[in-house]
Formats: sequence, structure tokens, C-alpha cells
Amino acid sequence: MLFCTLMTVKLPPDLPAERVQTLRAAETALAQDYQRQGKLRHLWRVAGRTANVSVWDCADADDFHATVSALPLFPYLEIEVLPLARHPSALD
Amino acid sequence: MLFCTLMTVKLPPDLPAERVQTLRAAETALAQDYQRQGKLRHLWRVAGRTANVSVWDCADADDFHATVSALPLFPYLEIEVLPLARHPSALD
Amino acid sequence: MLFCTLMTVKLPPDLPAERVQTLRAAETALAQDYQRQGKLRHLWRVAGRTANVSVWDCADADDFHATVSALPLFPYLEIEVLPLARHPSALD
Amino acid sequence: MLFCTLMTVKLPPDLPAERVQTLRAAETALAQDYQRQGKLRHLWRVAGRTANVSVWDCADADDFHATVSALPLFPYLEIEVLPLARHPSALD
Amino acid sequence: MLFCTLMTVKLPPDLPAERVQTLRAAETALAQDYQRQGKLRHLWRVAGRTANVSVWDCADADDFHATVSALPLFPYLEIEVLPLARHPSALD
Amino acid sequence: MLFCTLMTVKLPPDLPAERVQTLRAAETALAQDYQRQGKLRHLWRVAGRTANVSVWDCADADDFHATVSALPLFPYLEIEVLPLARHPSALD
Amino acid sequence: MLFCTLMTVKLPPDLPAERVQTLRAAETALAQDYQRQGKLRHLWRVAGRTANVSVWDCADADDFHATVSALPLFPYLEIEVLPLARHPSALD
Amino acid sequence: MLFCTLMTVKLPPDLPAERVQTLRAAETALAQDYQRQGKLRHLWRVAGRTANVSVWDCADADDFHATVSALPLFPYLEIEVLPLARHPSALD
Amino acid sequence: MLFCTLMTVKLPPDLPAERVQTLRAAETALAQDYQRQGKLRHLWRVAGRTANVSVWDCADADDFHATVSALPLFPYLEIEVLPLARHPSALD
Amino acid sequence: MLFCTLMTVKLPPDLPAERVQTLRAAETALAQDYQRQGKLRHLWRVAGRTANVSVWDCADADDFHATVSALPLFPYLEIEVLPLARHPSALD
Repeated sequence: MLFCTLMTVKLPPDLPAERVQTLRAAETALAQDYQRQGKLRHLWRVAGRTANVSVWDCADADDFHATVSALPLFPYLEIEVLPLARHPSALD
Repeated sequence: MLFCTLMTVKLPPDLPAERVQTLRAAETALAQDYQRQGKLRHLWRVAGRTANVSVWDCADADDFHATVSALPLFPYLEIEVLPLARHPSALD
Repeated sequence: MLFCTLMTVKLPPDLPAERVQTLRAAETALAQDYQRQGKLRHLWRVAGRTANVSVWDCADADDFHATVSALPLFPYLEIEVLPLARHPSALD
Repeated sequence: MLFCTLMTVKLPPDLPAERVQTLRAAETALAQDYQRQGKLRHLWRVAGRTANVSVWDCADADDFHATVSALPLFPYLEIEVLPLARHPSALD
Repeated sequence: MLFCTLMTVKLPPDLPAERVQTLRAAETALAQDYQRQGKLRHLWRVAGRTANVSVWDCADADDFHATVSALPLFPYLEIEVLPLARHPSALD
Repeated sequence: MLFCTLMTVKLPPDLPAERVQTLRAAETALAQDYQRQGKLRHLWRVAGRTANVSVWDCADADDFHATVSALPLFPYLEIEVLPLARHPSALD
Repeated sequence: MLFCTLMTVKLPPDLPAERVQTLRAAETALAQDYQRQGKLRHLWRVAGRTANVSVWDCADADDFHATVSALPLFPYLEIEVLPLARHPSALD
Repeated sequence: MLFCTLMTVKLPPDLPAERVQTLRAAETALAQDYQRQGKLRHLWRVAGRTANVSVWDCADADDFHATVSALPLFPYLEIEVLPLARHPSALD
Repeated sequence: MLFCTLMTVKLPPDLPAERVQTLRAAETALAQDYQRQGKLRHLWRVAGRTANVSVWDCADADDFHATVSALPLFPYLEIEVLPLARHPSALD
Repeated sequence: MLFCTLMTVKLPPDLPAERVQTLRAAETALAQDYQRQGKLRHLWRVAGRTANVSVWDCADADDFHATVSALPLFPYLEIEVLPLARHPSALD
């Protein structure tokens, strides 16, 4: 099942730079794992903002929640979730 | 260039059924043309709402506006637009 | 999969009373069918408002969308959708 | 009487991990007590977010407030409350 | 049980004046009945707006919904509902 | 003159418990004084939230501001103010 | 007592021009009466919008409501009301 | 003095096509006059929406209001206004 | 040119009392200077809130920005700005 | 391609003054570089607020994101982005 998320990253300004780097590196590593597993189908940057639009392909909502909440940045994310269905005009 | 849109369809309740059908058929036809041209890369239904999430691939904002504003349902759409950039963690 | 919806009914004030009655009767009939099928697990009225909180149990988002969009009142509904996962503290 | 709540957990990012664990353990213990007492009828995770949808069955608003405000996480919760009535189309 | 409501009256501008008068007279009559029954404890006008703040004393949410939804102006009301509990600092 | 307020208490999570207790005790003492003086006519807890609905009876806006801004919790309150007028349907 | 209002005029686009003119003329006449009576102390146009900022000097909220609700455009106004108190830094 | 506006065009869906064309032609003619006069310095389309971002150069707020409110589409526009000052980092 | 501002003061709760007093004294001194210069025409307290409504008379937006941003409390202010034009119904 | 941004600067009040100065100096230097490169076409201060309206001319969304996210103040900015297309009534 597909879920579209708009994730806005809200890191506290006083978080030590080193901590931020560690978090970002771990986030990238896990995000790339998810892409290889096919769980994270699409990942785009929202131009001009510390936010991304992603499309996740998970078994169901439990799988989706476990997947997203494992992200190292999860405690610092504001997430809007739209469950996606097939559009009648979609060709693929 | 990629643009993500969240389009909510707001048809006036008193629009004649026939008119609605004509609009929807024309909308589907054009949306499928756009998909064949590669302009409309992704089109998903937001489950439970008369809304869709789409990702458009256009030359630039002028091309994007011309493409979207040609949709028969355009006068009845509330559209949020997010310009998309490449995400550093994206593999594709 | 479970979906929680907050549905606010926005009937145009000038809709003929007879039409409203027909819509409501059809809505009730289908809602009760859904409950018998196990698709509509919970249906509560938000006290003081023309709105309801419902919990739907559907195969996936496509099934959920087909189920909800078939409601006679669907064109007159503003719907917020929350996909639900199992809560780690839930006993059932 | 039934109350539906949408609770969003907003823990300060700099709260020590140990403190967070203690809070979460106490929260789970009390939430499970409430379920055994029949006060907390339903508890679902909002997929993708640190939030939950719950349905509480309390004697009245005073009982409901005493119940919810006793939750260890209460100082860190943003809570929306919808009092629920019987829906005329509900079969149960 | 007490419920506080903020009701904003949104009459369509093209509703015939006579119809408005009939509605308002019926609304006043029922509101005054409710006050005599003790159901409507307080009724204030929000100064400068077509809105009122009211405090209702009903058996439970079902009784509250039945009471409020019977108001002639109900189809034209936007209603925010706050269930009220006893405040620890309240003397009465 | 009457003023209705919706006060949401936003205490910083890291405020020492002792300080919170002192503030709350002083708040209760002053709130009860105001009730004895007839300045604070009604004080209800919004069930499920750290918020209250109150109705104040003050000489005018200056008196009202002096009264409310003297509350020990005032620096930690988000306050919405609705000036109240007599409702034509009110019996009292 | 002083009240500050932000009034946004929302005339239905299909209201006959003649009717609009009659309303505006009556509105101006009454607004100028109020200024002569000292009830309407200040009246400014919000540049670029069909809205105005006004400061009213009325006996109390009842007087204020009676004054504002008598405006011919009242049914077409969205009004935000701020009760004003003396500012400690104000010289006048 | 400079004013930045975000104008969203909200034409009623049932406005006759001919009327829309007349309005749009008159709007374009006046907008181009304003550009020749130097009053309208910049006019951009918000890609994907029936909205525009404009920067106006007027003597003051009265001139600005007279200029904008003369636009044929003015009754159908939702307008956000930001008065602009010189930015300390601006080179021009 | 006139500007109306709604300023909400958001002082961090943990700002030392002494610092707050210094800021407030400096703010009052400058605000009273501005009133003597005729730059600050009106200054009212929003009753019940740490906010004020002010009307500024400045040469243009640059002058207005320089004036307001010099206020000692400026870093702690959330400011909404409405540029004001002459209202056709205003007598003064 | 053009992008319009509304950037609100949200510096933590307890950020050392020296740090703020360094950030602002670096921000100004880079903003002026961008203007010389033609990337930052317009930069205006929103009068009365710590915010600016800017128009950026970048190759595409990737270039735009790289440009904006390099700003020293980027971690402290809330940014709204509107992609701009040519307006049919624009003369230039």
C-alpha cells in the first residue's frame, strides 16, 4: 500500500553540529536501505525548504509506521500523511 | 523540472450530472495524454477524498502552468504546488 | 487495514427537503450494509455538529476509497483521513 | 459517555533518554489499566506520526478529565477532544 | 453534564426576509423553552458578531446533540463544542 | 461588563515542579478571591485539556485587563477574549 | 469603552449593482452619523482590500453590538473584535 | 512606495463565459496601462494556480488602494498585502 | 502614511526579571518619544492579552520599518501590519 | 526560472549577540554575491517584520535549493516558496 508523506525537519538550532552530522548520516543510510528494499519508492526535496515529499510502499499502516518511526530524524520531524489509492485516470 | 501538486476537486453540488460527466471524461483523456507525453509522471488518488497527489515533469514553471491550467477541471480545483529538487539521499 | 475519518456534512441550505431525505435514507441504508459487512467498524456522531467519527476496516486504500466514495452524501462531505496502526499499549 | 481524542505527543528533544523511557513505561502501564477498567475502549496509533486516536468511556466530563490528566505524558500532549453521541445509523 | 458552545450564524444572504424572521422567532421560542427546562444555563451574544456563547446542561452527549440539533437555525450554524468539567479552583 | 475567555496554560516542561506548585497555589488563591468579589462569575475546566473557559464581570476593559494580567500564570497563558453582550433570547 | 474591529466586506458577486449602491449609501450615512455622535472614533480603509479598521467608543458591549449590528452591510461583514484597554505607555 | 500583493482570483463557476472574457480583457488592458505608468512594476503568475504575485509602486496607501480597487476583477480577488521597505542587503 | 499594527509580546518565560524590566522601561521611553514626535498616533492595549493595537504615522514603509524595528522589544514581537488608506466614509 | 520566497527570520532570543552579527554579516555578503550573479533579482524588506520578499532566478529547482540552503541564516528561516511563471498581461 502507498503512503505519501510531507516531512518537515525541525532540528533545534542549538543541537551540536557533530550530533546533526551523525543524525543526517544515519538518516541517509537508512533511507537508502529503504529504497533498495522498495519500501521508499520516491524521495524528493521540497525546493527551498528543509522538507521532503516521499512515497512509501508498505504492507499496511503498521509496517508503514514501523518503517517511518525508525528514521533517526523521526523525533525532529513534522509529518503529514496521505494514504494513496489508484487513480482511475492513472495509466500505470 | 518536477512539481508536486495536491489538487482538491470542488465541483458545485448543483452542477448538472451530465456536465460533470463531460468534464470528468475530458479530464481523464487529457491526463492520460499527459502521462503518455511524460509530463504527468505520477497520479495517485488521496484515499477517502476527492483529491489527488501528482508529480509533473515540465520544462519550467511556464510549461507547468500551461499544462495544469489546460485541465478541464482547472476552474474547480484548489491546488497546492511544491517545486521538487533532487534529494541528496535519493538513489535514483 | 483501519482508517479513522472525521466527516463533516455540508449540505447546501437550498437543497430541497425531499432530496435531503432521500440522500439521508440512502446514506443510512449503505452505512448499515457496511456495518454488517464489517467494513464500518465504528460510527459515532460528534455531539453538537453535523459530523461523525468513523473507523473503517478495509483491505487497503483502494478498497477504502471505493467504499467511502460510494456514500450518497460523499459529494457533500469534508473528510479528514487518519490511517491507523496498532498502538504498542493497546491490549486488544 | 464517550469521548474521542486525537493526542499528539510533543516531547522536548533534549529530554534525557532515560526520562523518556520512564515516562513511556508509566504511560503504557496506566493506559493498559484503563483498558482493563473499560475506561479506554479503543487506542490506535496514527500511522506515521507520534499521535494516537483514542475513544474513552467515562461517567462524565469530570471523570474523563481526571482520567486523561493522570497520564504521565499529559504535560507533553496536545489534545483535541470530540464528545461522541450515538449515530442514528449505527447498528450497535 | 455541561457543554460550552460557540455558535456562529451563517444565514445565506439571499434567504427571503420572511423566512429569516420565521426561523429567528422559532429559534427564540425554543431557546427560551430550553432555559426554562434548565437545559440552556447561559446564553450570551458575542458583541459585534452574529455568534453566541452558550453553556448547556444535558444528561449526556446524546441528550446534548438532540437538544442542539433541534434548533431551527441548526442547519445554518457553525458550532465549536467544548465539554466542561469542574475546575479545581471553582468555588461554586 | 462581561468577558468570556478561553485560557490555555502552556507551562515550559522544564519548569521546576516546586515553582509550578507555587504558581498553581497562588493562581487558585487569586481566582477564588476574584470569585468572592464577583469579578470571576464562572470558571470551568475544558475536559481533557489544560485550559479553562471563564466569564468575567468587570467595570470595563481596563478593569478586565488589570484583573486578568494579575494572575500568577498570566505569562504562561494563551488567551482568547470574547466581549459578551446580552442575547435577545436570554431570559435572565 | 473602546473596541477595535477589522471588518471584511463579503458581498455576493451576483448581488444586483443597484442593491449594492443602496447598501453602500446607507452604510456611509450611518457611519457618518456614528462619527458625529462620537461612537465611531476612527475609520480607516485597509489598503488593497475591501476591509476597514475601526475604533468604536461605546458605553459597553451591548451598546457596541447594537451599534455595529445596525450597519446595513452587517449581514455581509466578517468581523474580528478586540476590546481595547488603556496602554501603560500611552501619553493621551 | 512599494506594495507586494498575492492576488487569488475566485470567479464564481456559474459566471457566464462571455462575462469572464470581458472581465479578463478589461483586466489585462488596465494592468498593462498600470505597467506603462510605472505603477505596476512586476507581475508574475503563481505557477499552477489562478493567482499572481505583483509589486506596485504608488505614492502612498491611498494611491495604492485606488489603483488596485479599480481593477475589473477586484470584486473577485482575495488579496494579501505586504508593504515593502528597502532591504539593507539590497544592492539596487 | 498610516500603518496599523497588532503586536503580540512573546517574552521567553526564563528571561531574567531584571532583563524584562530593563526592556519594558526602554520600550516605554521610546514609545513615548514616538508619540511626542507624532510617529505613534495611537497605542491601545488588547484587553486580556500581552498585545497592543497601534497606529503609526510615518513618511513611508522604510521610515515605518526603521521606527518599529528600533523598539527594544522588537526581537520578541510577532507583528501583523495593515497599511491604512483614507476611508471614503471617514469625516476627518 | 523564477521563484518568489517569503522568508521569516526566527533567531532564538538567547543566541549570543556576537553570533547574530557574524551570521548577519555572512548573510549580507552572500546575498550581495547572489545579486551580482543575477541569481537574486529582487530583495525587499517586509515593513515592520523580520521577513523579506525575494525573487530568485535559478536554472531549476535544484539550483534554487542549493542557492537558498547555502544562506548562513537558512537554519533559522521559515520559507514559503511560490514558483513563478510569465503572466499573460505582463509587458516585460
